[in-house]
Parts: sequence; structure tokens; C-alpha cells
Amino acid sequence: MPKFDLRHLNPLGLAKVLTREFGHHAKPPAMPPGALVHVGEQLTDKVTFRIVEYNRENITIEDTDNVAECLRFKDTKPVTWIQVTGLHEIEKISELGQRFEIHPLVLEDILNTSSRPKAEVFDDYVFIVSKLLRYDHDTKNVEVQQFALVVFKTVVISFLEAPTPIFDPVLDRIKKGMGRIRGAAQDYLAWALLDAVVDNYFGVIDGVDQQLTDLDDALQKDAAGVEANVLFTAKREVSELHRLVRPIREIATALYRGDSALLTEYSKPFFRDLYDHAIQAIESVEDLRELAAGLRDFYLSAVSNRMNEIMKVLTLFASFFLPLTFLAGIYGMNFEHMPELAIPWAYPALWGVFIVLALGMLVLFRKKRWF
Amino acid sequence: MPKFDLRHLNPLGLAKVLTREFGHHAKPPAMPPGALVHVGEQLTDKVTFRIVEYNRENITIEDTDNVAECLRFKDTKPVTWIQVTGLHEIEKISELGQRFEIHPLVLEDILNTSSRPKAEVFDDYVFIVSKLLRYDHDTKNVEVQQFALVVFKTVVISFLEAPTPIFDPVLDRIKKGMGRIRGAAQDYLAWALLDAVVDNYFGVIDGVDQQLTDLDDALQKDAAGVEANVLFTAKREVSELHRLVRPIREIATALYRGDSALLTEYSKPFFRDLYDHAIQAIESVEDLRELAAGLRDFYLSAVSNRMNEIMKVLTLFASFFLPLTFLAGIYGMNFEHMPELAIPWAYPALWGVFIVLALGMLVLFRKKRWF
Amino acid sequence: MPKFDLRHLNPLGLAKVLTREFGHHAKPPAMPPGALVHVGEQLTDKVTFRIVEYNRENITIEDTDNVAECLRFKDTKPVTWIQVTGLHEIEKISELGQRFEIHPLVLEDILNTSSRPKAEVFDDYVFIVSKLLRYDHDTKNVEVQQFALVVFKTVVISFLEAPTPIFDPVLDRIKKGMGRIRGAAQDYLAWALLDAVVDNYFGVIDGVDQQLTDLDDALQKDAAGVEANVLFTAKREVSELHRLVRPIREIATALYRGDSALLTEYSKPFFRDLYDHAIQAIESVEDLRELAAGLRDFYLSAVSNRMNEIMKVLTLFASFFLPLTFLAGIYGMNFEHMPELAIPWAYPALWGVFIVLALGMLVLFRKKRWF
Amino acid sequence: MPKFDLRHLNPLGLAKVLTREFGHHAKPPAMPPGALVHVGEQLTDKVTFRIVEYNRENITIEDTDNVAECLRFKDTKPVTWIQVTGLHEIEKISELGQRFEIHPLVLEDILNTSSRPKAEVFDDYVFIVSKLLRYDHDTKNVEVQQFALVVFKTVVISFLEAPTPIFDPVLDRIKKGMGRIRGAAQDYLAWALLDAVVDNYFGVIDGVDQQLTDLDDALQKDAAGVEANVLFTAKREVSELHRLVRPIREIATALYRGDSALLTEYSKPFFRDLYDHAIQAIESVEDLRELAAGLRDFYLSAVSNRMNEIMKVLTLFASFFLPLTFLAGIYGMNFEHMPELAIPWAYPALWGVFIVLALGMLVLFRKKRWF
Amino acid sequence: MPKFDLRHLNPLGLAKVLTREFGHHAKPPAMPPGALVHVGEQLTDKVTFRIVEYNRENITIEDTDNVAECLRFKDTKPVTWIQVTGLHEIEKISELGQRFEIHPLVLEDILNTSSRPKAEVFDDYVFIVSKLLRYDHDTKNVEVQQFALVVFKTVVISFLEAPTPIFDPVLDRIKKGMGRIRGAAQDYLAWALLDAVVDNYFGVIDGVDQQLTDLDDALQKDAAGVEANVLFTAKREVSELHRLVRPIREIATALYRGDSALLTEYSKPFFRDLYDHAIQAIESVEDLRELAAGLRDFYLSAVSNRMNEIMKVLTLFASFFLPLTFLAGIYGMNFEHMPELAIPWAYPALWGVFIVLALGMLVLFRKKRWF
Repeated sequence: MPKFDLRHLNPLGLAKVLTREFGHHAKPPAMPPGALVHVGEQLTDKVTFRIVEYNRENITIEDTDNVAECLRFKDTKPVTWIQVTGLHEIEKISELGQRFEIHPLVLEDILNTSSRPKAEVFDDYVFIVSKLLRYDHDTKNVEVQQFALVVFKTVVISFLEAPTPIFDPVLDRIKKGMGRIRGAAQDYLAWALLDAVVDNYFGVIDGVDQQLTDLDDALQKDAAGVEANVLFTAKREVSELHRLVRPIREIATALYRGDSALLTEYSKPFFRDLYDHAIQAIESVEDLRELAAGLRDFYLSAVSNRMNEIMKVLTLFASFFLPLTFLAGIYGMNFEHMPELAIPWAYPALWGVFIVLALGMLVLFRKKRWF
Repeated sequence: MPKFDLRHLNPLGLAKVLTREFGHHAKPPAMPPGALVHVGEQLTDKVTFRIVEYNRENITIEDTDNVAECLRFKDTKPVTWIQVTGLHEIEKISELGQRFEIHPLVLEDILNTSSRPKAEVFDDYVFIVSKLLRYDHDTKNVEVQQFALVVFKTVVISFLEAPTPIFDPVLDRIKKGMGRIRGAAQDYLAWALLDAVVDNYFGVIDGVDQQLTDLDDALQKDAAGVEANVLFTAKREVSELHRLVRPIREIATALYRGDSALLTEYSKPFFRDLYDHAIQAIESVEDLRELAAGLRDFYLSAVSNRMNEIMKVLTLFASFFLPLTFLAGIYGMNFEHMPELAIPWAYPALWGVFIVLALGMLVLFRKKRWF
Repeated sequence: MPKFDLRHLNPLGLAKVLTREFGHHAKPPAMPPGALVHVGEQLTDKVTFRIVEYNRENITIEDTDNVAECLRFKDTKPVTWIQVTGLHEIEKISELGQRFEIHPLVLEDILNTSSRPKAEVFDDYVFIVSKLLRYDHDTKNVEVQQFALVVFKTVVISFLEAPTPIFDPVLDRIKKGMGRIRGAAQDYLAWALLDAVVDNYFGVIDGVDQQLTDLDDALQKDAAGVEANVLFTAKREVSELHRLVRPIREIATALYRGDSALLTEYSKPFFRDLYDHAIQAIESVEDLRELAAGLRDFYLSAVSNRMNEIMKVLTLFASFFLPLTFLAGIYGMNFEHMPELAIPWAYPALWGVFIVLALGMLVLFRKKRWF
Repeated sequence: MPKFDLRHLNPLGLAKVLTREFGHHAKPPAMPPGALVHVGEQLTDKVTFRIVEYNRENITIEDTDNVAECLRFKDTKPVTWIQVTGLHEIEKISELGQRFEIHPLVLEDILNTSSRPKAEVFDDYVFIVSKLLRYDHDTKNVEVQQFALVVFKTVVISFLEAPTPIFDPVLDRIKKGMGRIRGAAQDYLAWALLDAVVDNYFGVIDGVDQQLTDLDDALQKDAAGVEANVLFTAKREVSELHRLVRPIREIATALYRGDSALLTEYSKPFFRDLYDHAIQAIESVEDLRELAAGLRDFYLSAVSNRMNEIMKVLTLFASFFLPLTFLAGIYGMNFEHMPELAIPWAYPALWGVFIVLALGMLVLFRKKRWF
Repeated sequence: MPKFDLRHLNPLGLAKVLTREFGHHAKPPAMPPGALVHVGEQLTDKVTFRIVEYNRENITIEDTDNVAECLRFKDTKPVTWIQVTGLHEIEKISELGQRFEIHPLVLEDILNTSSRPKAEVFDDYVFIVSKLLRYDHDTKNVEVQQFALVVFKTVVISFLEAPTPIFDPVLDRIKKGMGRIRGAAQDYLAWALLDAVVDNYFGVIDGVDQQLTDLDDALQKDAAGVEANVLFTAKREVSELHRLVRPIREIATALYRGDSALLTEYSKPFFRDLYDHAIQAIESVEDLRELAAGLRDFYLSAVSNRMNEIMKVLTLFASFFLPLTFLAGIYGMNFEHMPELAIPWAYPALWGVFIVLALGMLVLFRKKRWF
């Protein structure tokens, strides 16, 4: 299974390279607008289709890479979920789009993996495009891909760039008839998919939180052992995470408050719930952001304290030995008339002075709490 | 009585571990949404029910752990307050929920102790979920638990994770018939409970304020004796407190402005009052936040000043002894032709030079106000 | 006359202790809500009443501590101003409140000296609670007390915690028939009182401004002579002043835009004027806040510059004497074969080297603009 | 011509003294509100009036200091512009105000030179009060005075504190019949005056911008030669400029969106244009503010870098000479058994060691890029 | 082709000089407002006109510098695009403006190259003025010029200051009949032009992003090798970029939400798309801004760390040699009674002491992780 490896810098798994890449090229310049182009990397060999058709009694699942298979299902009574994986074969997507009368600009947004996340209500369908994040516990990386959803009266089409296990639980519930999904309309399925997306946001948040906690522990133990680099990267990557998660609020609001006839009264509380989770996810990321900024500030303060430590050692040594060295220097002078030099107890007496001076300074620095 | 020990780091009682834990897992991933699961720690042995039924004349109080007892009370005339303590026995909560026709998503929110605080008006009931904070003066810790309230036409059901003395004053007033509570409708009881919650927010604010004041005093006395750690933790924990207290504004607004038929005109001014207190609590926390940030800035400035102090000592010693040592070095040279060496008064004269130089530098440094 | 001594720390008169105290205890915990309790210090011996009754022709002023005197005046034609000073005798306030049918929660707000400032329009009266600030030019302190106003159809009741000269000019104008106050309705009186309150805000702002200017001058003259403490306190106290002054905007807006029948068309421009002044006062405090923050930043920069100064002195001395001392050390060595030692002009030549080296370094450091 | 000399501190011409003075005394305390008082300095000998009356064919200009002259013009057909210069003779202003039925509070605002800038629409007139800024290229100072405008059906009265050349171009255009002003109604004149005011804001912005650019150049050339003082003053004065310019947006919005019958449909686009310019002026000041903050940050960074420079020199000297001095110290010892001392080539060999050590350290420090 | 060379400082191509120049002179002072003046540099020899007239079947393109040619095309059926390049020949622009009945203030905005970007809906046309940015990959500069658009019922007039290849792809699509442009109305053409403008914003964002990435790499490799200057300039220039790009949101909103009859229902989704891209461009610039600020903070932290490095070296040397030098100094004293001096093994023993001391300190500093 292809993955988006986002990990460039420890300790966080969101890479700065990706941070910058997406969001910029809305469309390859000099292309006729409205023309269909796939913008993004190819992440699958083939564009494949999985068609899940179900009602309370029956369920059929079919995997194919032939777009014609998908077209039979429109306007049939039971709920149909067409899951499209891979976006690089434009003619297949285009054919699907034409068959379902999807507006060319919507198709363009589906194919352009740097589309701005949003939900738009059209007369015949609701279009949702968002980011799908998954935390890979093995690599501690975050997989990011675009996820688009077109919700018709009975059909739900989901578009993915690459296969992902995120929707497996939803499919499981459909297969096993758990919960209410089999008895509910297509908008409940749409909600279930979005709910799975938001659930995985929490997984990512927990992963990043764990990394920040580890970083915090490392800082508390030995701030000097942590590179400034890491702190600044962490702050930047949490900002990036915020940017990825943030649009879900707008989407949830549009679905919860929007008055499309395609979203039934029955599903309203579920979309309200989705909205709650979205807010919670965003607030959690904002907490992470504050945490990351706090870690960086703590690091800067630790650097400053460390400088104090170093200066104290220097000052201790210099203040200790400079007076003693001066004294020794005096009795190294070659004046002919230095009566002290002839006194037999002068040398041990000077040692006494050295020791008294040294002790005095130790007491003084101790009082200043320098060591 | 079980407690949420939040104290990890002095001097504030809100722990960073908790800060992170809650709010993240909205629901255990891979569970069918809508299924009832208890998310959180088990804090009581058993789920217990206390049923308080009263009108102006009579009052009956009954403690039980049998959910069936609760079901008899619905639709009876007097006000009924069912206090549920403990959330881990799902079937009991579920049975209660079904009997009172509570929406499954609401039940889910009640059982999930990391629900987003909010107030939602349904046709038959008003649902409120919030955080309950209590300052423990002995341990200087803050106990946090989730508190949910479902307000029906005559019945109020409150859900707690663990026993708490917060609602004892309300129960006392009911028992003794103090104030207007015995003569008022169920919405007045709901207000009394929420008012007790907000009152305890002020208790926590005062406790944290006291800790910050102590920290301030410690900083003023000896900034070097305070660890940077503590300042940053204090700032972070006050942010966390803000996050816990903040949603009460939204709840108070929803109740005060919302037009549920369940909230009588009579109670309106009380909910307006609740709103005032909520705003005040939040503003107080924001003041604490500014205070904590100010303390941290003061600490950083104190570190900087301390560095100045250390550097001044170093500079004093070095500037004082380096010239003297150089002079002594000169007369330690072994040139054959150094006429000064033979002069009898040269050695005491050099001492004079030493003393004059030393005094001069003392005067200079004094003028620069270095000591 | 009792005073609220707010001065704890120079140079500003707003004390941090007060900053924290008020706003927190909205009500003593564990009291039945709705019960009347005085929250705050007792600042007068007795609760006294001054009743000022006037129309264009006549004026009567009566001072009493008997609440019964106040009750005769309701519903009489001319404007009646009842000024209540002192809040600790609850039964008096309570009697007054019942006679004028003031809602218990309003009475609670009047008695609780940490109420949130606000204006509320009721059917029969308008209720205003705010902070009264007065700058004492002798002590350079700011007196703070709560001020409440209940405006009926012909009666205005003002509640003070302690006597204050703030409203003397208004009384003077009534006595002497200056301006339009004698010919105007009760809402004009309410405006005159609020206008006096806002005028005193400007007095406080000027006083604090003067203190900040003095602090600025002190910083410009000798930044090292100012303690970090003072800068941080100043910033904090101006924030506190902001918090005290800020709510007046909300109050002025409510009165100016609110459509209570108690506020006549005639007074509208005056309340609009009040609104302008309120905005101006708040903007002035925000300027002070920026000024205080600027002073603190300047101080931190001065500390940093001072460190540079110290380091330059150290570096000058060390760089100057270390090479010279090394040279002297060389000719202090005891090698048998050091031909230079026997040269008669070697010693004066070395002095030449010393002088040339010293001058060279002086030139170098001069070029680097180190002194 | 009297001037407001605002220049106290280089390099910006806005003085901090003025920054603080205005905006604070909304009215001298203890005065009956509504009474007319001139608040501000007297800047002209006499209050003078210039009456400009014109239509497409004719124009008459009359200068007088007799208020009675002004009163003849009301309700005459052609546009009349009465320019009042000087505010200290209250009885004249008052007489004018009564004749034109201006509300006493408006007159109060006109006379109080610290009024909050605003536009207010009355039934018979529109009242505008604002700040007039002019950059004096000779002194590099900014002149500030209050400017008030009362726009009636055919008459426009402008109030100035002191003479200013700002409105000369408008008078010129009227005299010479340039543009459309002679053929347009009185609201076009009002716009032309306000447009001249905003144009001069741009003049001030350019002047301040030039000063900041000079400051920037000075910083780039030699940051150490710039006093911290200047940077902080610059930042503060740009904030003050922002405060002076900011209210023009509110004024422009009120005029452009307000629906006074006195503003004709014909002039709408011009007031929309004024609004655009106002926004642009404010955004330019905000850019200046960011620029000033950036300069200050750059200065602080330069101070920090300079410290690094100093420390490097110190470290270079100390690290260079301390080992050499130690070596020299060894062979200055007086042990009887030091075989090296007798070796003839020991002394030159030690010089070799000195040179090798010195070169080694030079290479090391070079590699660390310390010089 | 003339270019706006914006590059003054590496590494970013937006120059600070330009940053300041534009936006300030809204109009040369002392000019009669409403008079037409060209404000800006002359960037072409002549004002030229390119007239592109097309419908689904035909297309004619004509280049001329005779304004009379343009006037024939109004009210003809097919879409007409008049592209005006150069603004300095006022009489031509003025003639065009009069022929198409463009309001003089609009013409003024077109001629003034520092107009505030905006979209205004008039009865007969929609007026859009904006900034056109193009990244020159060779010079790494950003070309900035003003771009104005007047959209009539069938005619679209675009005004440029200088020739630019930005609109070549649109012309290409018209010529080759690619996409839907040939079959669509004039509002689609307006959208295509604006879309090209926004596309080039992304080009600039990518260019600046690349420069910031390079800067980041340089910082990571050797922070000391980067001048503070560059970091501050980068931050300032990204702010400038933000200021240039920001107004496009307002323009897109006005077009997408505005209800001009000139914008057809057919084009609505395209303008919605434009709005999405505008938001995305602005968010990308805000990310760049955060990135630039982060780089500067990282640099400051690196400077601080470097100071630590330097201090450590100094402290190492001083702490190492000062004690040794003192010891050597002792045995350089000339006391007659120093028994150690006569001991044969004293000298080698002292060397032993030297070595032990040195090793001890090395171990100590190693433990403190100073090297």
C-alpha cells in the first residue's frame, strides 16, 4: 500500500516539504481553466472502483476497474456507495462525472489534490472535499491524502488518491449490519464516512501529542541535548496540522446548518455531532499549538539559563585565581629591597593568605548562590 | 471518595498529563458510532441513583442502585431530581435513557467523559454537559469531572462520574426549604445546580490565584531560586483552566437566550445572572492568564538581570587585577639593566602605585554604579 | 473619609492585591442564591440616605439614616434623587428594595461589590452597576468603589459603598440651578451622574499617565536605576485599569441604543455624548497600555545594552593587558641563554613595545567604537 | 503663522508629549456639562471669519472678525462657506451656533479640541469633527489641529484652531472656477474639504515614511550608532499617528453609507472615493507601524549580534594569550632542577612553540569563522 | 519589455523601496480632484490598443494605437475585448472613457497606479482594479503592475501599465477555440482574465516559497553565515506580498455574491471557483508569513546558541589555564625559604600536578557536556 511519508525531521511526523507543496498549485499554469487535469502524484497502479450496494436485507460488494460497472447503479432504490481509488486516469473519472452530471469545476476540484477543503450544496448533490489524515504508529508518520465525497439522492461516491484502511470499519458495519447503517439513507453513510475521517484526526492529534510529550520530557531532562531545530520544526508542523484540520469546521457547519433536501431530518443530530467533534479536534490542535510554542519558549529560556551557568563558572574561576596570581606575581618581582623575601615564615604565611582568600571567595560566591 | 489527582508539578494543581488526555479521544476508534460505550476511568464501585422528589409541602429522598426505582417517577407532578453517580454500568444508563426517551447520541455524550461542553435544546428536554471543577484546599489539587444534566418538564437528571460535595448545599436548601427552591419549578433546580458549578469555578480561580500570588512572592524574593519549569507550567495550566472554564459562557448564553418552553419566564433573571457569573469567571481566568504570562516575563527579565550581575563581578575582578598583575610581571623580568630594581624605595613605591590604581578603578566602577 | 488605599508598589497607584481580590467571589459559596448578603468591606459606620427632591422652582435636601424617610417620595411629581451611602445594613437596603419593587437579583448585585458592571433595562426601571474611580492627588492612589444606579420614572436611587466627592459638582449644579438640570427629567440626572463617573475616569487616566511619564523620564535618565519590578507592575496595573474602565462602553451602548421608555428623546444626545466619552476613555487606557508595554520593552533593551557596556569594558581590559602580561612573562623566564636580557637598551625597548602595542589596541578599539 | 511644534525627539516629528495630552481631558472637570468652554491652547489673536459665497457665475469673498457678518448668509441660494479660524472667543462661536441652531453638545465638541473624531447626521445638518495633520517639510514636524465641519442645506461652516494652508487649493479652485466645484452643491464643497484633509494625511505618511527610511539606512550602516531610545520613540509615534488617522474611516463610512438628505446622489461616488482614500491612508499607517516594529526588532537583533562580536574578541584574546602566558610562567619558576633552562636552544625552541601554538589557534578560530 | 525590478535585497524579490512607494500618493496634492492625471511611471512608449472580437464562429484581432478604432465596437453582438496597454497618454484614455460613459472617478482610479484594489458594481458596468504580480524566474524578481477591468454588457476593457505575458494563455484559448471561452459571454472572459491573475499569484507564492526554503537551508547549514538583515527583509517582503494579494478576496467576494445583471448565472460557479482560489492564495501567503517569522525566530535562537558556544570556549580556556598559571606563579616567587625549590623531583612532580589538574578539568567539562 502506497504511503505519503511525511517524516523528514524528528520528532514530528509532518514534513515541512509537504507543508509547502500543497495548496500552492491550484492548477498547472497555462492550462485552459475548466479542463480536467490530475494535479498530484500517482499513488496507485490503476484507478479502481468498489461498488457497495445495500439495504436492510441485502448487500452486494463488487470490485472492478471498469468504470462502466459503476454506471448501472444510479437511481436504483437501495443505497449505493461507489468508492473510487486513484485519480490519475482522467477519462474514467470524466466518464463517471458525465454519467452522474457532476459540474466540470467539481470534477476539477476532485482531480486537483490541492483543492481547498469545502462543502458545496448543489441542486442534485452535495460535494465535499477534505483532507484525510492517518497516523501510522510504526513509522510515526502522518499519511495525508485528499478525500472527496459526492452525495446524491441514493448514491454516495467517494474519491481517494490511494487505498487506506480508514473506511474499513464503516464497511465492516455495513457488512455485519451493525448499528443503524443498513437501515438508514445515503446521508447516514456520508456521515459515517466523515465521522471516520474526523476520528482519524483524533488519532493523529494523539500521535503528535505523544511526540510533543516525549519532546517535553527530553527538554526537562536535558534542554541542551535538544537541537533548536527540532523545537522550531515542531511548532511549524503543528501549525501545518492546524491548517489541515481547520477546514473541517466549515464543512461540518455547512452540512449541519445547510438546508439541502438530500440531508434528512433523521441525520441532523448526527451532523450536529460531527460538528461537535470537528470543533473539538480543532481546539485540540490549537492546544497542541500552544503546547509547541510553550516548549520553544521553555527551550529559549533554558538556553538563557545555561548561558548563566557557563558565565558563573567563568566568573568563579577568574575571580578566584586572578587575585591569587597577582599575589604570586608580587613576590616574583626582582627588587633588591623586598624585606618579606628574607623572612623564613613568609612563604608559608603567604600560603595562609592564599587559603584565607580562597575560602573567603568561596563563602562569598556561596552566599550569592553561584554553586 | 475517589479524586482526580491533577497535581504533578508545583505550584499549580492542574496537571499537564490531564491537560492532554481529555478532549482527544472523542470515542474509541473503530467502534460503531451511536453505540454506547463508557469512555473514561471508572471512579465508583457501582452506579448509584439518588432520587429527590419534592414540592412546597413534601420531600422524599431515596438512594438506590436499582435503575428500576428511577423509572416510577416520570410524569409525577412534583419536581423530581434523579442524581446518577458513576457511568461505567452502561446497561443501567441505557435503560434510564430509553425510559426517558433520550436520543442515543445524547447518551453517548453523557457516557463519553471527553464530550465537548455544550447546551442543546430538544423538543422534550434540554441537555447540558459541562466540566465540574472543585479546588481541594488540603492537597491544593483541582478535581475535574464531567457533569451532565437533562432537564425534562418535571424531572431533572444529573450525571456525575464520581461523588462530589459540590451539590450538597443545593440538597440542603431543598431539605430545609431555604430560599425559593421548594416552591419553584424544575428549571429553578437546574439553575441552582449550574450555579453551584460556577460557584466552584470561583473557588478554583481563587485557589490558583493564591498559588500564583505565592509564586509571585517567591519570584520577588529570589528569582534565581525559582525553576523556569514552574513558570512555564503555571502558564500552561492556567491556559488549561481557561479551556475548562471557557465553554460555560456558551452554555449560559444558550440557556439565557434560548427559547425552550421548559425554561419559565420566572427563571429567566436567574439564568441571566448565571450568564453574568460565567462571564466573570472567564474574565477572571483571563486575568490569571495575563498574570501567569507576566510572571514568566518577569522571570526571564530577572534571569537577564542576574546575568548582568554575574558579568559585572567578572568584569570587576578582571579589570581590577589584570593591570596590577601586568605591573608585577614587569618587575619580575630578568633584564640585567633595570635601574628601578636597585632603588630601595621602589618596592614600597610600587605598592603605592598598586593602591592608587586599585582605588582609581574602584572609584570608576562606583561611578558606573557597578556595585 | 474612608479610602481604598490601592498603592502597594511605586510608581502606580493601582495595587495588585486589589487587582486580584475583586471579581472573584461573586457570592460567598454555600449561601442560598437569591439571599441578600453584603459582599465587601464595611466602609462607613452607618448606611445613610440623602434625599434630593427638585423641580425648576424648588429644591429640598434631607439627610437621614432612617430608611422610612425615603419611602415617602415615590410617585411624587418632581425629580427625586435618593443617594444611599454604605451597603452593610442589609435590612435597610432590603426594605428600600421591596418598597420600590426592585428584583431580588438586582438587590443582590447592588450588595455584592464584585458584581460585573452592566446596564439592564427592566419594565419599571433601568439598573446600572459600574466602578467608580477617583484619583487622589495627594497619595497618588486610586480609590475604587462600586456604584449602582436604579432609574425609575421620577426617582433615581444611587448606591455607594463609601462617601465620595465625585458627585458634589452635580449636587452643586442642582442647588444653584446651573445648566439645565433643574428643568430636566430624571434621566438627565442619571446622565449627569454617569458623566461625573466618566469624568473621573479621565482624572485617573491623567494621573496614571503622569506616573508613566515620570517613569519614562527616570528610564531615559538611568535605566539601571529602575527595578524590573516596577515596569512589570506598571504594565499589570494598567491592564487592571483597563479591566475597570472597559465595561463602561457596554453600559453607554446599552443606554444610548436601548429603547427604554424611561430615557427621553431629549436626553438621547447626552447619552450619545456619554458614549463618545466612554470610547475615548477606553482608547486612552489602551494607549496607556501600549505605553506601559513600550516602557517595559525599552527597559529590557536598556538591560541588554548595559550588558554590552559591561562586556566591552571587560574585553577592553582583557585584550589590553593579556598580551602585555605575556610579554612580561617571557622576560621573567630563567633560561640561561636569553641574549636579550643582557642588552642594556632591551628594557626601555620593551617599554616601547608595550606602549606601541597599547596604543595600537586603543586605536583598534576606538575604530570599533568601543569607547 | 502659529504652529504646533510636535518635534521633541528625532527622528520622527510626532511628539510624545502631545501624544499624551490630547484625548484625555474631554472637558475640564467640575464644569457644568453642556456649558461652552474652550478646551485647548489659544493659537490665534482673534477669531476671524472668511465668508466665501459662490455659484456657477459669481463669487464673493469677505474676511471679517465680526460674527454678525456671517449671519446674513443663511438660506441664500448660492453655496456659502464660512471658515472660522480660532476658537477661544466663545461668545462669537456661541452666537454663530445659536443663529444656525446648532445643538449645544455639538458646539461643545467644536470648542473642545480633544473631541473624539466622528460624523453625526442631524435633521438639519451633518456634523463632522476630525484631526487635521500637515507635514512641515522644513522642520520635519507634523502640525496637528482639530477641524470641525457643519454642513447645512446651502451653508458649510468649517472651524479651525489656527490658520493653515491646507484648504488653499480648494479656495483656488473656487476662485478660478477649476473642476466642477463652482457648479456643484454644498456637499461637494464638504467633500472637497475632507478630501484635502485626507490628502494631507498622505503627505504626513510620506514624511514619516521618509524618516523611517532614513532611520533604516542609519541602522543598516551602523546599528550601534543609533540609540535604542529613537527606535522606541519611532514605534510609539507611529502608533500615535495611527490613532490620529484611524477615525477617518468611521467618518467616511458614516458619510458614504449614511442617508442624510443633505448629501446628494451626485456626490455619492465622491464620498465613496473618500472612503477608499481613508482606507488606504489607514492601511499605509498600519504598514508604517509594522515597519517601525520591524526596525526595532532589527535593532534588538543587531545589539545581540554586537554582543557576539565583543565576546568573540574577548574569547580570541583570552584563548590566545592564556596558554602562552602559562608556558612563560613555567620557565619563570625558580626550581633548582629544571634541565631545560640550561639548554642553549631551549629559549628559541620555546619561541617556536609559542608561534606554533598561536598559529594553531588562529587556524582553529578561523575555522570557527570567528574573524 | 519593460520590467518593474523589485529586487533590492537578497533573497527575496520584493523590494522595500516599492513597498513604500505605492499606496501613498493617492493623487498628486494640490490637483483639482476629479481631474485626470496619470500617477505612476511611464512604462511604454505609446498607449496601444488590441481589440479582440469573437463569437463561436469568428475571431478578429486588431492592434492599433488609435483610440478611434476602439469606439466602433460598442454594442456589436459578439464579445469584444479591448486591451489597453500604457496609461500615460491621458487624452486617449479620456476619450475612451467618455465614449463608454465611464465615471470620471473610475477613470481617475484607472490612471492612478496606486489605487486601492476593489470591485465596484455600477448600473452599466462592473469595475475591477487589482494588482498583477508575475514571478520572473530568471531574475527572481516579482513584477508588479496595476490591472484594471471594466466589464460592460458585451465589451470587456482591460487596462495595463505595461505589456505582460500573463494574459497570453487566455488569448491563445480564444484563438484556438479551446475550452468554452468562444461560446461564452463576456463575463466568462472577465473571469478568465482574473483567473490568470490569481494563477500568477500562485507562481509568485511558489517563487517566494522557494527563496524562503533556500534561506531555511542556508540557516540550517550555517546560521552565522546569514545576515540578520536578510531575515528581517524577508519578513517585511512577505508582509508586503500579503498586502498585495489580500484585496483579491474582497474582489472575488464582491463578484461572487454581488448581483450585477452583467454576471450571468452560467458564470456563477466560475466566480465561486475564483473565490476559492483567492482564499487559497491568501492562506498560502499567510503560511509564508508564518514561515518567514519562524525563520527569523530560528535565526535569533541560533545567534543566542552561538553566543553560548563562544562563551563555552572562553570559559574552557580561562578555567583551564588560570589555575595552572597560578601554580606556576607560586614557584616563580623569590622567597629565600621555599624548600620545594630544592627538591630534585619537584619540577617533574609539578608537571604531574599540571597534567592531573588539566585532565580533571577536562573530565569535569566533558561531564557538563561543554565540548
